[in-house]
Amino acid sequence: MEQSRGSLLQASLLRFVRRGAWSHAGRLLEKSHPADVAYVLDRVALTDREAVFALLRTPEMRGDVLSLLQFATRADLLAGLDPEVAGQIVKHMPPDDAAETLRELPQERSEEILSSLGEGAEELETLLEYPESTAGAIMSPKLLALPEDLSVESAIDHVRRYGDADASFYIYVVDERQYLVGVVSLRQLILQPPDKTLRDFMTTDPIRVTTDTDQEEVARVVSRYDILAVPVVEANNRLVGVVTVDDVIDVMRQEATEDILKLAGTTTEETTAPGWLRGAWIRLPWLVSSFVGGFAGIALLSTFSDTLTQTVQIAFFLPIILGMGGNVGNQCSTVIVRGLATGRLDVRALPRILAHEAGTSALLALTFAVALAIFAAGVGFGPELFPLAVALGIFCSIMIAASVGTLLPLFFSRVGIDPAVASGPLVTTSTDVMGILAFSLIAVTIL
Amino acid sequence: MEQSRGSLLQASLLRFVRRGAWSHAGRLLEKSHPADVAYVLDRVALTDREAVFALLRTPEMRGDVLSLLQFATRADLLAGLDPEVAGQIVKHMPPDDAAETLRELPQERSEEILSSLGEGAEELETLLEYPESTAGAIMSPKLLALPEDLSVESAIDHVRRYGDADASFYIYVVDERQYLVGVVSLRQLILQPPDKTLRDFMTTDPIRVTTDTDQEEVARVVSRYDILAVPVVEANNRLVGVVTVDDVIDVMRQEATEDILKLAGTTTEETTAPGWLRGAWIRLPWLVSSFVGGFAGIALLSTFSDTLTQTVQIAFFLPIILGMGGNVGNQCSTVIVRGLATGRLDVRALPRILAHEAGTSALLALTFAVALAIFAAGVGFGPELFPLAVALGIFCSIMIAASVGTLLPLFFSRVGIDPAVASGPLVTTSTDVMGILAFSLIAVTIL
Repeated sequence: MEQSRGSLLQASLLRFVRRGAWSHAGRLLEKSHPADVAYVLDRVALTDREAVFALLRTPEMRGDVLSLLQFATRADLLAGLDPEVAGQIVKHMPPDDAAETLRELPQERSEEILSSLGEGAEELETLLEYPESTAGAIMSPKLLALPEDLSVESAIDHVRRYGDADASFYIYVVDERQYLVGVVSLRQLILQPPDKTLRDFMTTDPIRVTTDTDQEEVARVVSRYDILAVPVVEANNRLVGVVTVDDVIDVMRQEATEDILKLAGTTTEETTAPGWLRGAWIRLPWLVSSFVGGFAGIALLSTFSDTLTQTVQIAFFLPIILGMGGNVGNQCSTVIVRGLATGRLDVRALPRILAHEAGTSALLALTFAVALAIFAAGVGFGPELFPLAVALGIFCSIMIAASVGTLLPLFFSRVGIDPAVASGPLVTTSTDVMGILAFSLIAVTIL
Repeated sequence: MEQSRGSLLQASLLRFVRRGAWSHAGRLLEKSHPADVAYVLDRVALTDREAVFALLRTPEMRGDVLSLLQFATRADLLAGLDPEVAGQIVKHMPPDDAAETLRELPQERSEEILSSLGEGAEELETLLEYPESTAGAIMSPKLLALPEDLSVESAIDHVRRYGDADASFYIYVVDERQYLVGVVSLRQLILQPPDKTLRDFMTTDPIRVTTDTDQEEVARVVSRYDILAVPVVEANNRLVGVVTVDDVIDVMRQEATEDILKLAGTTTEETTAPGWLRGAWIRLPWLVSSFVGGFAGIALLSTFSDTLTQTVQIAFFLPIILGMGGNVGNQCSTVIVRGLATGRLDVRALPRILAHEAGTSALLALTFAVALAIFAAGVGFGPELFPLAVALGIFCSIMIAASVGTLLPLFFSRVGIDPAVASGPLVTTSTDVMGILAFSLIAVTIL
């Protein structure tokens, strides 16, 4: 649906642009939904993009479109604009989107734009002062807050006049100090007789978050209570903003990305931070821990030097035995980490989880042990008992990996560390070391 | 915030339950938000959970709570109930949540409950007929659809009487065939004079999806157009349901989970499918491909048997060289896969991406090559040029892994395959094989 709207617009628009039919293109853009314009801008080449963006007549439309663009497109477009012009556009974006955009830009650039705003910069600067990833940083200060003794009739009148607030389907009720005391929905308002006051039917003690609530927690609150927006208060309960569900959707996407990257042993900054040195620096920590673990592997193998020289075939099988362990370990840790994050995994049913993982892994380990033994016997490598050694080796490697992959994130979660830290590099390295030890001991004993 | 509400309720409730003060507990529950009750039920032991759930007096409250529970808790609770009783509760859940619950239950159980519903089952059965993961399967049929020639006054009257529909902040406008022709928001309705008709100010050609639209696409539409609900129509444009933003949030969480698990080489079914055999079966495919790749590694190494026997130290360094490659490969593929999924990664800027990945990886490869050479020289393993061999070995292994990890998902995406298929097992196995070849060739040449 959206695909076809967006691509229809893109086809017509590019046709006009190629022909130089600028007024046609401009009129088409005026009739289009900002989201569809954003769709097109995200997909066309840079020169066409700048041409089309220049055709958007009002700073309002430009602001609307800009706040719907993908990060890379937005950064490119703003980079090509004069700070003054960029400032005019930013001014017309919803305040939370404007703040987010400025946060994403290089600091110098963002300060240029801010200083071009003059007085209008104040509201934005306040938002920018809240620490990143908090409710304060993602909230919008544009909301409907009305006194509790207001009548339904006057309240409806207010909605009519100031209804372009964010989250206009909720009206927040405040006392004379601007402290949050209640909430009514637009629908509730319609249901009530005109002379009632908001106090008479408002929901008291509404769900709320404070400016320093972590954005992940904000997302959880909105999704737990199935609300469309959550009011943000200061520590003293003074109402200062609102986080709407569309921001929550952005937060959730962002947090999922963080989890995914953490599992691979890197961080979110990655995709936004340019520069090789910075890129390498971000990925380094997990790799170093893995590297140090590798030294342990070297030390272990060197103590079994004689066996290895005698039966060099052991070395042939080392990669497959360790590799399979690593894969199984990663599967286990990923299932556990994501299960913990989404709550699908019921930690009270720990024995059941462990039994399931143990049973599943044992089945897999057995399957691959038999297959590897048959292969080793088939190709006739090594001494008589060699197939038995590799079978036991891969069985132990998989079982060790499954145990580490399952228990490590559970342990981290229990002691209060983010379980996603039990990530790929950590799991594969520790299973590598233990797998080497197990296989070497088995080889020495059997052969 | 939500934490404290939920845990406060939990503490008071358990105190009452322990003392056998059932009527106190019941009154407390009546005053509580269903989401807080769900929070408690998700966290207490099974016996307490059943006791508390039994205290919820009305099927409405039970339905509300049930639809907010985590999967495992919901399944446990429903398993302990008589099908008749379960049916009464399901009847009082929002239809989309009821359908989801029935989908999650074992088929036999879900049919028992459905047949206990009698006539009320029809609506649910219609929903259950739509294929999983489509708009039809996640929509709610409860919506406000009004004719276009209705006056504002009558429309507001309708909202007053039937306002408990899902997505009650939008009123959909239909023609006499129930075809979707427009949408007005509750706020727009308030702004208009009472005698205007909906046709006069409705937004025509509203954003919509069809019953067979993939749920991921539904989520994209809702988040792209920043709307709170999207109407669902049949192929002929007849309006049949609505997907609200809270369902979209669930879909997004689910899709992120799928991506995460796919990257580790397993699938979502995992966390829900019990049984060892089934668990092993789900994880098997990627492991088998990895296993087969392992055979290639064995074959390769066996052709370098002489060198290995001569310089057994090569075997000591094999795990660290392959392991570091695997880790870097995973980092690269994860960054690319997630970047493609979220649109952060700008595919038109391919040369820039490749240059960034190449530079970053080369820096990392160089760092670890130097470190490994120093280590090898320090411990004095092997022949004179051995440190050079391991340094070149790990450098090549990391660079190969980075290339595979970066290019494979980009290639998959280009030819229309889900890039997440370029997952952990695939990347590590292919880099293992190529890493072995590279290191062996280097060792043979240098030593």
